[in-house]
Amino acid sequence: MLRVAFKLAYFGWNYHGSQYQPHVPTVDGELFRAFERMGINARERRYRTAGRTDAGVSALGNVFALDLDTFDPWMVRVLNSHLPEDITVWAYRVVDDDFDPRRNAVSRLYQYVMLDEGYDVETMDEAARMLVGKHDFSGFAKNCRPCVREIYVSKVEKDGELLIYTVEGNAFAWNMVRKIVTALKIAGREKSPEIVERVLSGEQIPLTPASPYGLILKDVRYSFDFEVEEKGLATLRERIAENFRKFAQLYGVFRILSDF
Amino acid sequence: MLRVAFKLAYFGWNYHGSQYQPHVPTVDGELFRAFERMGINARERRYRTAGRTDAGVSALGNVFALDLDTFDPWMVRVLNSHLPEDITVWAYRVVDDDFDPRRNAVSRLYQYVMLDEGYDVETMDEAARMLVGKHDFSGFAKNCRPCVREIYVSKVEKDGELLIYTVEGNAFAWNMVRKIVTALKIAGREKSPEIVERVLSGEQIPLTPASPYGLILKDVRYSFDFEVEEKGLATLRERIAENFRKFAQLYGVFRILSDF
Repeated sequence: MLRVAFKLAYFGWNYHGSQYQPHVPTVDGELFRAFERMGINARERRYRTAGRTDAGVSALGNVFALDLDTFDPWMVRVLNSHLPEDITVWAYRVVDDDFDPRRNAVSRLYQYVMLDEGYDVETMDEAARMLVGKHDFSGFAKNCRPCVREIYVSKVEKDGELLIYTVEGNAFAWNMVRKIVTALKIAGREKSPEIVERVLSGEQIPLTPASPYGLILKDVRYSFDFEVEEKGLATLRERIAENFRKFAQLYGVFRILSDF
Repeated sequence: MLRVAFKLAYFGWNYHGSQYQPHVPTVDGELFRAFERMGINARERRYRTAGRTDAGVSALGNVFALDLDTFDPWMVRVLNSHLPEDITVWAYRVVDDDFDPRRNAVSRLYQYVMLDEGYDVETMDEAARMLVGKHDFSGFAKNCRPCVREIYVSKVEKDGELLIYTVEGNAFAWNMVRKIVTALKIAGREKSPEIVERVLSGEQIPLTPASPYGLILKDVRYSFDFEVEEKGLATLRERIAENFRKFAQLYGVFRILSDF
């Protein structure tokens, strides 16, 4: 028996999240179906994932692991041939028998993209940087109390008409990144970074999670590197380029329509 | 009996084009269903549209007309309440009994948005301007020979990372705008506007229509103005703003992923 970990990219808007649910399309569900076509019942193979993502959220480097009788890098190609166009496996690693992609992760890196709707970007960045360090994030989480996490990087940058929030930490609670983004937007709108301190210090401030479409789980990092599967990576890059063109067009269409 | 014309906006990516086809979602099909819920069989009411658009193409100001027993602006609200979120009627006009939205149109205005993938924009604009005037466009059309149309405006402008092609003419043949865009891309890539002249002069150059997602039928113009239905217009503006945010995010997500 071999335990193998895989790096997984997916575009999330067609899925009800990554975690398996019967009767609705999920990323896990598509993976289970693809493995089934290869004669492998993933669910009976200690299938584990590094991070659960919500409906609409995309990933470049989520990770899952399962036990296999044999493994050859060719399996990645076969797996991709059975997966839909918006899910691509692009790297792998044979790991220790007790490997758990969630527990063994050293850090998670997320990015969140949003339209700059007149925010004060410096204030947002200042507010973002207040999150660096070890804090109780229960005010930014759902059903997590206490909720101590350590954040290594947290910053906001302007990129043309868009703002990008980058956050890396040891672990994230449910809805945490999207609730942080909502707090940063409030900070940027009110030109006051204070809201972050208030939430961190335990004040009850309701934060509706920001729209999922802007969120990417960019990477889950371990104490080792993965082997890239070149065909999978090439396919992923083509799919990214195609979607980039399409969404640039739809964004442009709505920018034109917004002037109306 | 009253003949009434309506201005119609729709986001095209969920539809197999505007023209009615059984068994697949079309813009006409949704309109027929909405009228049906109001007890009106649109197909028996001399239903006509100004412009047929392909699958994926959006419109801000397409026009349809039909005969009604009575008309009150309130009908627009009822109609919108029966239409899906990506189709909105926002203006109307009681017209002459013999009004035909296609035949009576004075001009059509289209815009096409594309990603600037390193094109020579000046050359593209030069090539675009060669189309102004009366020409036989059969080389840019499908099943239209001869295919004389008059173009009033044809220009390419840069807008950040995007390019916008604007074209207004008396009428357009099937696939014409998207084939012109393909020719303009070739001109911009090869830094030579010549291809436009060659196609216009009858040389057989195969032109695959450019992706439909960037195309908007922005307006169909007549010798009269429409009355705006304020509630419909407000709804349309909200829907545009919401989609603008969403597609700005998805565009940003893929811009980030493109760096990978």
